[in-house]
Amino acid sequence: MNTTTAELDGLAVAAAAAAPVWRASSASQRASWLRAAADGLEAHIDELVGIADEETRLGEVRLRGEVGRTTGQLRLFAAAVEEGSYLELTIDDADPSATPPRPELRRTLTGVGPVAVFSASNFPFAFSVAGGDTASALAAGNPVIVKAHSGHPRLSRRTADVVAAALEAAGAPAGSLALVEGREAGNLLVRHPVIQAAGFTGSLGGGRALFDLASGRPDPIPFYGELGSVNPVVVTDAALAARGEALAQGLVGSFTLGVGQFCTKPGVVFVPAGGGFEELVAGFAAGATGGPLLTDRITDAFPAGIAHLEADPSVAVVARGAAGGTDAAQPIVLSTDAAAVAARPETLLEECFGPVTLLVRYSSRDELLAALEAVPGSLTATLHSEPGDDVAAALAVLERKAGRVLFAGWPTGVAVTWSQHHGGPWPATTSLHTSVGASAIRRFLRPIVFQDAPVELLPPQLRDDALAGLPHRRNGVLRVPQPGR
Amino acid sequence: MNTTTAELDGLAVAAAAAAPVWRASSASQRASWLRAAADGLEAHIDELVGIADEETRLGEVRLRGEVGRTTGQLRLFAAAVEEGSYLELTIDDADPSATPPRPELRRTLTGVGPVAVFSASNFPFAFSVAGGDTASALAAGNPVIVKAHSGHPRLSRRTADVVAAALEAAGAPAGSLALVEGREAGNLLVRHPVIQAAGFTGSLGGGRALFDLASGRPDPIPFYGELGSVNPVVVTDAALAARGEALAQGLVGSFTLGVGQFCTKPGVVFVPAGGGFEELVAGFAAGATGGPLLTDRITDAFPAGIAHLEADPSVAVVARGAAGGTDAAQPIVLSTDAAAVAARPETLLEECFGPVTLLVRYSSRDELLAALEAVPGSLTATLHSEPGDDVAAALAVLERKAGRVLFAGWPTGVAVTWSQHHGGPWPATTSLHTSVGASAIRRFLRPIVFQDAPVELLPPQLRDDALAGLPHRRNGVLRVPQPGR
Repeated sequence: MNTTTAELDGLAVAAAAAAPVWRASSASQRASWLRAAADGLEAHIDELVGIADEETRLGEVRLRGEVGRTTGQLRLFAAAVEEGSYLELTIDDADPSATPPRPELRRTLTGVGPVAVFSASNFPFAFSVAGGDTASALAAGNPVIVKAHSGHPRLSRRTADVVAAALEAAGAPAGSLALVEGREAGNLLVRHPVIQAAGFTGSLGGGRALFDLASGRPDPIPFYGELGSVNPVVVTDAALAARGEALAQGLVGSFTLGVGQFCTKPGVVFVPAGGGFEELVAGFAAGATGGPLLTDRITDAFPAGIAHLEADPSVAVVARGAAGGTDAAQPIVLSTDAAAVAARPETLLEECFGPVTLLVRYSSRDELLAALEAVPGSLTATLHSEPGDDVAAALAVLERKAGRVLFAGWPTGVAVTWSQHHGGPWPATTSLHTSVGASAIRRFLRPIVFQDAPVELLPPQLRDDALAGLPHRRNGVLRVPQPGR
Repeated sequence: MNTTTAELDGLAVAAAAAAPVWRASSASQRASWLRAAADGLEAHIDELVGIADEETRLGEVRLRGEVGRTTGQLRLFAAAVEEGSYLELTIDDADPSATPPRPELRRTLTGVGPVAVFSASNFPFAFSVAGGDTASALAAGNPVIVKAHSGHPRLSRRTADVVAAALEAAGAPAGSLALVEGREAGNLLVRHPVIQAAGFTGSLGGGRALFDLASGRPDPIPFYGELGSVNPVVVTDAALAARGEALAQGLVGSFTLGVGQFCTKPGVVFVPAGGGFEELVAGFAAGATGGPLLTDRITDAFPAGIAHLEADPSVAVVARGAAGGTDAAQPIVLSTDAAAVAARPETLLEECFGPVTLLVRYSSRDELLAALEAVPGSLTATLHSEPGDDVAAALAVLERKAGRVLFAGWPTGVAVTWSQHHGGPWPATTSLHTSVGASAIRRFLRPIVFQDAPVELLPPQLRDDALAGLPHRRNGVLRVPQPGR
């Protein structure tokens, strides 16, 4: 079912026609469209989860939870649109007495135009057709064309049908959401003149190729890719002594969650040498169960990735769990030492999708710091320490390497909230923006400022009567509407 | 005086060492450093303006004004740092009762790391060594390495010395500001592993080449380029009838200002056919005076650009002004019609630096709209209309094409304020961000979120005691400190 060039052109024309309607839509309209999409998904949850389970084998419990996350995202963005801060409304009144005389300026953010979204294998709902990229692009006032992931084509089609129908029934224009299929259609999509920005969740190789296409256009467009992350964890001596068993259990739970196919899986864990952590982890890992991986590509890549690690002379196997079925992946814990990691990071610190983690023994703070410097940019970094630990130097490195720094728990599980940041230095993401949380909307907006505009030609949100009810800055002072007004 | 690779490496090491100091600096420290840089420029204004006038021939009045703009920019960013909204502080308190339990998240923005700034020929102060890109990168908490423009090398060196000394005297670390010279050093700079983002103001060709280098790195970095802009102007029948003479006079003043070398010069003006505007403009243009252009390259390119336009069979010369000296450029007004522009935009709508503007006659709204669709992305668009004019369709196109839309006056002159936006769709800029105004700081910041962090390991601005005095969002609610508290 590969989309042809002619079909893509038709979808692009429809998206371009829908763009001004989305851009000009009021906050209440747009919020109602986002909520209609969420309601549509819920109304079809049994059917959609059924298709998803057939295609991904992720299981009904996980998939129902993921639909909840997806509808929650749509509703969070609806709330963000209504709240209005995302517009960054900023007014400077005219000052005829200034030298030179200062004009009136009224600034807002506005939708960039049609957005391409490349969906992920590992979240068939939350990072796919109606996932976070789509929700934030729509919330910003843009139509979306989604490139379906080949791992769940039927679900992609059905989800697109359900959401597009829900949007239209709520009054959104035709062309608000469309789907394309096939690698070549994806390549054409990111280069299509109508497309003004792209969001992507997937592999480093695939993401880099699309990033290069987006950047190589005659008119380059922003490409927001989430590509790969090893998510380093550091355990201090004191933390190991205080709660080693709980940490070992937590680590095994986290790296095997979802059969190790979360982008926030803890892939490399720095542990004190000789502290007994490997033994603790081995105990829990031996009791862990794997499962089938999402796609044939991932299934093939997992043993190859393990073999690549094991080929390093420093690497030993700590423990293996149970596969839990035929054609299923077996959890595995490997170990090495900090000197090897510092010497060969390109071998030892490459992301390996699936239920594997690498324990890295360190014998001194300097050894730890040298190895941490070799860690590539990551979505998350986790520091398990105790009060009084001198962790300033390690924390300084981790803050430079990651977008989210945790001090308790494990990085799998990404709360969808106002403050969440899901991004990090390359290759975690390509951007200074998040792909999860309310501020993800900023990726698909551009500023526009109106100078000395007659009130009737201003966008409604920039008129004085609307400003009274919206957060805005006027002459440098931030103003927030009072509750109850 | 080309900078060698070894010299660049040394400067990069120093910048990398300065980066954590800048990142961790308090708001009051960083603001004092920015103000010290402004004070340093003012203390040396006579010397600096003297050098600048020798190298650029822009004249003392203009250059003194530009120093004022430059120090004003540094002080605006100091105020923005103290105000604190730019940090986008966002806190979500823990919710153990949620499913799954929600951790505490505290988000801030933080400096990306050392920034490369490529300075411009046409603003030797305001868009050069200590200009807006440098000021906003420092305000964001990053050291800066500037690539000097070859049009004013001595001024670049002296400005860098003055500002670096002022920063160090105020307590900023060594390595806060450095200078490199030569095209090859610039190419190495944008690819240097230490550099985390780049700002650029200059030509489309030069900017595109650097953008490609930044995007082609093993770890791509954001490149914020301001490249080229024709700044369309539309005059309606009613506006022409009501104030044709004032509009003609204003246009001539604007396109000849600074000898036509502003990035916001009105380069293409859509006027009603047969309305007499060409004759009015001819009258004022005949009395206009040009002047010497900034560099040999611009001096050579100007007649070539005119010849390129005049070679189109539709183009006629409306008027020429006086050159005003030997080796000086003569102002010139050309005309064509909307059908030719719609048919051959790549010829007729290419930016031509220098005192030239192109009047485009339109005979109907449809003809105007078709020609406007052919206009490339621009920094500004200007609409001169009268109350009651039906301009909705034209305005919709202009809003899509430009970052700043004016309804009075002329686009030259860019107020440095909280709300200003200086940017636009490609090729005006590469980004969704501004290079002028307080929000320019956002280009050089990245988000970081702390999950369940002990208070003593949080950055100071994320602790509850600091939050009371800073704008922040907590559990979705935006809070602004009250004046007088």
